[in-house]
Amino acid sequence: MEYIVAMNGGDGPNSYTRNSKLQEESFNSTKPLLIGCIRDNLDIHKSCKVFRIADLGCSVGPNTFSCVNTIVQEVQLKFNAEFPGFTSLPKFQVFFSDTFSNDFNTLFNALPADRVYMAAGVPGSFHGPLFPKGSMNFMHSSCSCHWISEVPKEVLTKDSRAWNKGRITYVRSSCEVKKAFSAQFRSDFKAFIGARSEELAPGGLMVISIPCKTDESDFIMDLFDVLGDAFADMVHEGLVEEELLDSFNIPFCIPKPSEVIKVVSSDEHFNILKVEQSFVTAKLSSAEEIMFYTSQIRAVTEGLINKHFGPNILMDDLFDRYCHKLKEFSTRFQNIEKWGTLFLAVKRVIMKDELIQTSSEA
Amino acid sequence: MEYIVAMNGGDGPNSYTRNSKLQEESFNSTKPLLIGCIRDNLDIHKSCKVFRIADLGCSVGPNTFSCVNTIVQEVQLKFNAEFPGFTSLPKFQVFFSDTFSNDFNTLFNALPADRVYMAAGVPGSFHGPLFPKGSMNFMHSSCSCHWISEVPKEVLTKDSRAWNKGRITYVRSSCEVKKAFSAQFRSDFKAFIGARSEELAPGGLMVISIPCKTDESDFIMDLFDVLGDAFADMVHEGLVEEELLDSFNIPFCIPKPSEVIKVVSSDEHFNILKVEQSFVTAKLSSAEEIMFYTSQIRAVTEGLINKHFGPNILMDDLFDRYCHKLKEFSTRFQNIEKWGTLFLAVKRVIMKDELIQTSSEA
Repeated sequence: MEYIVAMNGGDGPNSYTRNSKLQEESFNSTKPLLIGCIRDNLDIHKSCKVFRIADLGCSVGPNTFSCVNTIVQEVQLKFNAEFPGFTSLPKFQVFFSDTFSNDFNTLFNALPADRVYMAAGVPGSFHGPLFPKGSMNFMHSSCSCHWISEVPKEVLTKDSRAWNKGRITYVRSSCEVKKAFSAQFRSDFKAFIGARSEELAPGGLMVISIPCKTDESDFIMDLFDVLGDAFADMVHEGLVEEELLDSFNIPFCIPKPSEVIKVVSSDEHFNILKVEQSFVTAKLSSAEEIMFYTSQIRAVTEGLINKHFGPNILMDDLFDRYCHKLKEFSTRFQNIEKWGTLFLAVKRVIMKDELIQTSSEA
Repeated sequence: MEYIVAMNGGDGPNSYTRNSKLQEESFNSTKPLLIGCIRDNLDIHKSCKVFRIADLGCSVGPNTFSCVNTIVQEVQLKFNAEFPGFTSLPKFQVFFSDTFSNDFNTLFNALPADRVYMAAGVPGSFHGPLFPKGSMNFMHSSCSCHWISEVPKEVLTKDSRAWNKGRITYVRSSCEVKKAFSAQFRSDFKAFIGARSEELAPGGLMVISIPCKTDESDFIMDLFDVLGDAFADMVHEGLVEEELLDSFNIPFCIPKPSEVIKVVSSDEHFNILKVEQSFVTAKLSSAEEIMFYTSQIRAVTEGLINKHFGPNILMDDLFDRYCHKLKEFSTRFQNIEKWGTLFLAVKRVIMKDELIQTSSEA
């Protein structure tokens, strides 16, 4: 199946470039952990000539460059601290990777002119291999791993017990629907982790930030689910075909921290260095804040919706309705709700059969 | 200065994807040489894990993939022939590189599903560094190096002796104009060669195919120059501002083989393995052939024209006129003219100070 998830391209008013503040907040909440991880756990070698970094699920817009800049800067600082006076810093090569539908043209044209790294774009699904074995030194993924490779088939099958009729997420659905999404997440995340353990050089680091469920709630998921209510009204009014809505689900699953940890722990190539949850307060009390969330969710879902419902879907109408629904929804939690990001740092261990090889390549 | 040359994107009727047969013919005329060069001159090592290939000035469309497939296939064949029974072929990583204006989205979406290599896109001018030092095994450039980084300033300066008033190429211009373009080519090509000698791993190969002047003529350049006549008519009729035409030149210079060889020879990092001229017969006798050439030239120049003359330029009108002009032009050479491609294969020599390093990395 073609992997079609991509954020809104370009740099217009509905673009992801201009509407990715939530993801920025999420990254900022884990940034000190990322920096600490590089300082404390990255092994660097004086003879390292090329330091290869991948940003997986890079999308477009300022967040991408902000993540990468932080990594490059910290590696440089570490290098200077460990080898004072040594002037031959490694060259940085950064691979920006996302699905084939991602707007790489916009990404490339927005590359900072003063960057100190060489840039490359890598199209493809991160649920499979993207880079040659052992070729990467640092891999990073922020706000991406919760996108699953496809909506579980049973969720879209009329006769199935997991049929998710009339809803676009699992959040208020049956236990079977939830299980199906959860299984898909585990399978996809396992494939993600497996691919990365091949691609990371022994001793290399990977840092993942992923939205996660907190004990009390699943705010992010709820936010997406409310969009289903707006759709339902449009079906009711004959503006959207019922069958089209029934066959639409957002390929998206917010995991529990324990699910993430379990998958990573089961890969013998990885040592978990740090797991930590960070939180951002959800603000949905004023009209401006609700407008803001509406535009953020639109930038993320519009591509999917267009692909599924076709060009005649009344997109502005849908998101106007969504905005109103969010207002109702916001009264439910009165500004005290938080949404969580799970930070996970792992090191690619050096396997026994890699020992000789690594020392000769260092 | 921003480097703006890029072929027409997308895959519509005027796209480069659908209108790059001339470049295909040029590549096909040198393909046997490319294959022979890999067979006879590529040093491969059993321990090579990643074989990195760059296609420089890749543009979009089928030619790009056809070049790269040929290279990958031949390297595989060579590997199998030299190490029969050894199953661990290197992984191929192919870097498609072109200017920031290139349509990488279209390129990525057209990547062959059955490709045996990992793909990356690298935006940037090939007149500067694009890859980490010594990181590439094979570099290739077909029909690209004749694009220069900018139109020489004196050609656009009113008071200069090299002012190229009313013309868009140097081909029927003064000696000063020709000299200015030629100097720009040499300077740019020197920068290109210098960057590649840094990026190629010692022992690596580079193959360049570049349109070149034959003894008798400069057919390709003439073809572009005729477009200037169409522009001149539009100025005459008040459809295009005279000043706008005076400030427009195609950043394009077809070199003599000797100019190319001189630049390469002067770089101590390269050993010239082969230089050969191949020829394609120019066919401009029928109306269909003239239409064909018109669409080929349009796919190459439309982006430049749009950028310079703005969105109000009557593009269809311009190329209708061009088509008529080409008919007049074609009577001049009655189907006997050929256009030449210079094939050049070089090997990155191993410098004295690289000897130890290379043997430990092999």
